Amino acid sequence: PASYGAHRFMKQQEVKPYVRDDCLEIECEVVVINAITKLEVQDVPPSDLPNHLRKLLDGKRGADVTFEVEDEVFSAHKIMLATRSPVFDAQLYGPLSDSMSKNIIVKDMEPPVFKALLYFIYTDSLPAMDDADDGESEDMVKHLLVAADRYAMDRMKMMCEDILCKSLDVETVATTLALADQHHCSKLKDACVEYILSSNRLNAVVASKGYAHLKRSCPALMFDLFERATKSHKI
Amino acid sequence: PASYGAHRFMKQQEVKPYVRDDCLEIECEVVVINAITKLEVQDVPPSDLPNHLRKLLDGKRGADVTFEVEDEVFSAHKIMLATRSPVFDAQLYGPLSDSMSKNIIVKDMEPPVFKALLYFIYTDSLPAMDDADDGESEDMVKHLLVAADRYAMDRMKMMCEDILCKSLDVETVATTLALADQHHCSKLKDACVEYILSSNRLNAVVASKGYAHLKRSCPALMFDLFERATKSHKI
Repeated sequence: PASYGAHRFMKQQEVKPYVRDDCLEIECEVVVINAITKLEVQDVPPSDLPNHLRKLLDGKRGADVTFEVEDEVFSAHKIMLATRSPVFDAQLYGPLSDSMSKNIIVKDMEPPVFKALLYFIYTDSLPAMDDADDGESEDMVKHLLVAADRYAMDRMKMMCEDILCKSLDVETVATTLALADQHHCSKLKDACVEYILSSNRLNAVVASKGYAHLKRSCPALMFDLFERATKSHKI
Repeated sequence: PASYGAHRFMKQQEVKPYVRDDCLEIECEVVVINAITKLEVQDVPPSDLPNHLRKLLDGKRGADVTFEVEDEVFSAHKIMLATRSPVFDAQLYGPLSDSMSKNIIVKDMEPPVFKALLYFIYTDSLPAMDDADDGESEDMVKHLLVAADRYAMDRMKMMCEDILCKSLDVETVATTLALADQHHCSKLKDACVEYILSSNRLNAVVASKGYAHLKRSCPALMFDLFERATKSHKI
């Protein structure tokens, strides 16, 4: 209202302590109250679809396919897998698929990684990884990126890429770069190169274990890195 | 920074036009820049799970049950229905279910309503209803509320309730109130009563077609309304 505060004037002598060097300092405190987010959203709880599908995965009811991953067996629903992953689609319903096959052996993948892949297929989110320490959880994310790439789970791959972009460190960045190159993650690759070339980390990276791996597995990448380092005058 | 604006003082005569009745009016313009929402979310596209499941519903692959609704037939997947609705769960997997039954006849429901119910089961959202006019779309939402209640789809029921709460009008509010009462939607019921008793709408509501229906179908509700109107001195 227009009358706000108008009857609360200060007397001239009360003002004096606030005047310094002939200047009156006025401090305004502004409180911003966040606008209430959309009313429609407030009244209806968030989607329970992912939670329902997580229960479907856990409960195994109606499961029509099993996967043997090392010494573990996982049950799942063909329609869920095929709907979510073009690779499972081809494997389960494609012309070369054996439509009667009910047990599939998965090679070159560890059981916890396959388990997390299934979790993502049903819920569209990565399982919580808070019990692992940082290094273990970074390793897991790398394995999940490989699994996502193998089964063409694009959004899952992007999520892994995003997590790795945000957890780069000197010891592991060379390995991450090799991984990014092998799985065509251009965003992660750029982030790694950027990280290596910035703030004089080059020596520490060259001294890391990951660097030897990078040299061995992606020699072509080394030229790229070398040229970019030269351009930015880091070497 | 502390120096901000310190060298931009005004001369005393420049201030004069701003002084009225011995008062200096100071207008502060405050611009609030919204904090950028979580970085993690920015880089990864939104969930594609609902879209994948919508395609599963449309494509019908692996469908193992059909529903006859009047003259239309809908295909669906038992696991999806049972995972999402406790009523379908009992119907398809419960002790009284015929596990071999592959065709179910649905009575007392119109095909478009059942179609929208299936859409919600797979995607967790209501189908777009922009081609219908307001009245038609309100009718559809009422039918969807009934369907959601019948199949114990709580979130769907809440969404319908929420839409109806926001589209009350004098002509239909009595019918909406009867519906809310029959399907135990206490929030919608309160909103209807609130609406009827506010801003002298009572006469218009009593004159509406819906009122006759309300009187016929929920006589008990009339006492409630009458008493609340008396308390708030509307009659």
